[in-house]
Amino acid sequence: MSPPAVHVALSEGRSYAVHFEPLATAPMHLREAGVTGPRALVVTDETVGPLWLDALADALRADGWQVEATAVPAGEGSKSLGQLGALHDWALALGIDRATPVLALGGGVVGDLAGFAAATLLRGLPLVHLPTTTIAQVDSAIGGKTGINHATGKNLVGAFHQPLLVLADPATLGTLPDRAFQSGLAEAVKHALISDPALADRLDREWDALVGRDPDVVASVVRDAAAVKAAVVEADELEAGERAVLNFGHTFGHALEREAGYGTLTHGEAVAFGMRAALHLSASLRQGAVADGLGPFQAADRLVARVAPAPPALDPDRLTEAMATDKKRTAQGLRFVVLDTVGEPRLADDVPPAMVEAAWRFALESGA
Amino acid sequence: MSPPAVHVALSEGRSYAVHFEPLATAPMHLREAGVTGPRALVVTDETVGPLWLDALADALRADGWQVEATAVPAGEGSKSLGQLGALHDWALALGIDRATPVLALGGGVVGDLAGFAAATLLRGLPLVHLPTTTIAQVDSAIGGKTGINHATGKNLVGAFHQPLLVLADPATLGTLPDRAFQSGLAEAVKHALISDPALADRLDREWDALVGRDPDVVASVVRDAAAVKAAVVEADELEAGERAVLNFGHTFGHALEREAGYGTLTHGEAVAFGMRAALHLSASLRQGAVADGLGPFQAADRLVARVAPAPPALDPDRLTEAMATDKKRTAQGLRFVVLDTVGEPRLADDVPPAMVEAAWRFALESGA
Repeated sequence: MSPPAVHVALSEGRSYAVHFEPLATAPMHLREAGVTGPRALVVTDETVGPLWLDALADALRADGWQVEATAVPAGEGSKSLGQLGALHDWALALGIDRATPVLALGGGVVGDLAGFAAATLLRGLPLVHLPTTTIAQVDSAIGGKTGINHATGKNLVGAFHQPLLVLADPATLGTLPDRAFQSGLAEAVKHALISDPALADRLDREWDALVGRDPDVVASVVRDAAAVKAAVVEADELEAGERAVLNFGHTFGHALEREAGYGTLTHGEAVAFGMRAALHLSASLRQGAVADGLGPFQAADRLVARVAPAPPALDPDRLTEAMATDKKRTAQGLRFVVLDTVGEPRLADDVPPAMVEAAWRFALESGA
Repeated sequence: MSPPAVHVALSEGRSYAVHFEPLATAPMHLREAGVTGPRALVVTDETVGPLWLDALADALRADGWQVEATAVPAGEGSKSLGQLGALHDWALALGIDRATPVLALGGGVVGDLAGFAAATLLRGLPLVHLPTTTIAQVDSAIGGKTGINHATGKNLVGAFHQPLLVLADPATLGTLPDRAFQSGLAEAVKHALISDPALADRLDREWDALVGRDPDVVASVVRDAAAVKAAVVEADELEAGERAVLNFGHTFGHALEREAGYGTLTHGEAVAFGMRAALHLSASLRQGAVADGLGPFQAADRLVARVAPAPPALDPDRLTEAMATDKKRTAQGLRFVVLDTVGEPRLADDVPPAMVEAAWRFALESGA
């Protein structure tokens, strides 16, 4: 039994569905979404392609589609202007038109890169996300953010380009390595903490079944975590305000990712440490002084700690400085997402530096 | 006396104004448009910069802005992925945030390139167009199209990104070379023919004053031609349908531009020849057979001929073939914009090839 689809309603009557069904159902869902052929461009990577491209391409071809596929190298390195240009070259040499859809089959890197290519080819091609990682299914495939990295930081070049359809096949999570699967759960935990206390409780209770990859538990948790993302995106399509709550753990996490060196920590792991710091900061702000414990956020931190491995050896001062180049900073200073309580996030500006440093120290010095 | 502003109303209550006033009024209009500083990124080119950058930058600095400016080489060659990357590098090294506006000071190339940089930096920075050529003031600065060229064709990579403000200073047209000024009038003629018969009459009547650069006549004609563009954009922000009428002359013109070699003809000249061909095709379609004259479109053709210099020596057959790679083609074949009568454009698909070839022959073999 597939869990029910999640629907994302945007402005001006636009909307799209997120289905949690096998890749073989792609032709049916493309038809429902009004995506027409006969040609489809599939972008995947060299890890996911060998595992899942045939299942997708066979189903499409059986339905009359002409499938053109390309695989980029796996990993963040592909989110580059050079790789974007290579996708432009590939697609334009095929003689596409404005109705030709781009299907992004893979994790966050493929989704961001192929999504940005779709956003920029002929000023916008139809985009379909076929996320194959936990993090992509619960987070990055929903919401229309696309982009590449820049020497000065991640995701600094990109565009908003909403998909017409997301088809997240839970079976693809079965081929993920343990580390990728588990660290991707960090975003599910994040969604639970900012918006769905019941999901937080379920995650805590069903953790063993989840990491044991019980198919029904995985599909159901991923679906509910994706629903949180969808609801936030609906309220703030272009990240004008409310959507900022999705950055819970990210102001800390991005700095950590950069300072540890990209590839040292997974994005999910960096966000997990970031959330531990953000929970400590939440406790400090609640009591109006640097907290020496987590107060009401202890249970939340136990959940987050499940996805945070041994902390990297980094200097809290240096990390505080690194955050200053994060793009979420405003003219007024750094902006953090903190919790008033689980399920109730808010933005905090002008946070005392002592609280930020204490939060870093907590996240980096507490064992998991 | 400046002519009245043109207003462009978009979906969801978004709108922007097109002012025809001196560059020195930029600070006032930025304030009205809600564009805040203190830092502004000005992108111009090596031709326009020496002429007009000081006037703009001085006015901005006097109003408290911190102005960062860069000049790209003049000409189509700057609409490249490499130049886009260079602008990303420049802007991101300055430590911009999402409120930092990009001001595009120049013609269509600068507007398209800087606009695309604004569209893609931090997933979208506020964009202000300060068009300094006829073609940019009546056409390209209005409507949100941004982009770069690709080896396989012009404008094949880009995004829709609407400006928050357009400030078109009529005085900047005074420094244009004659050829650029006059060929830019081709787009004004196009707007008159597709939507404003009264403007077509005025263009015919006041042509000498216009090309003599009578300031009041220039400002008033540019303003009314820009108003046509604004009305079409309002009706079809993302070029889903109606906006296609702006491509009158362009299916032919793009093929001509490509075959003649970019830079041989100006875009305006190519569009002028394209309009002559499109008028002939309109006459053919009206009578249901290849026309041997222009019928009711003779007066229109006389007006178009004013902006079409001696035709290039190109083979009509080869041009017909070149059109097949134009991005406006649909799966059904080439799509042309034709006139039922002046002011009443429509789309024509499945046009008999004999009519297309006859149209090419007319445009290339008639003297101006």
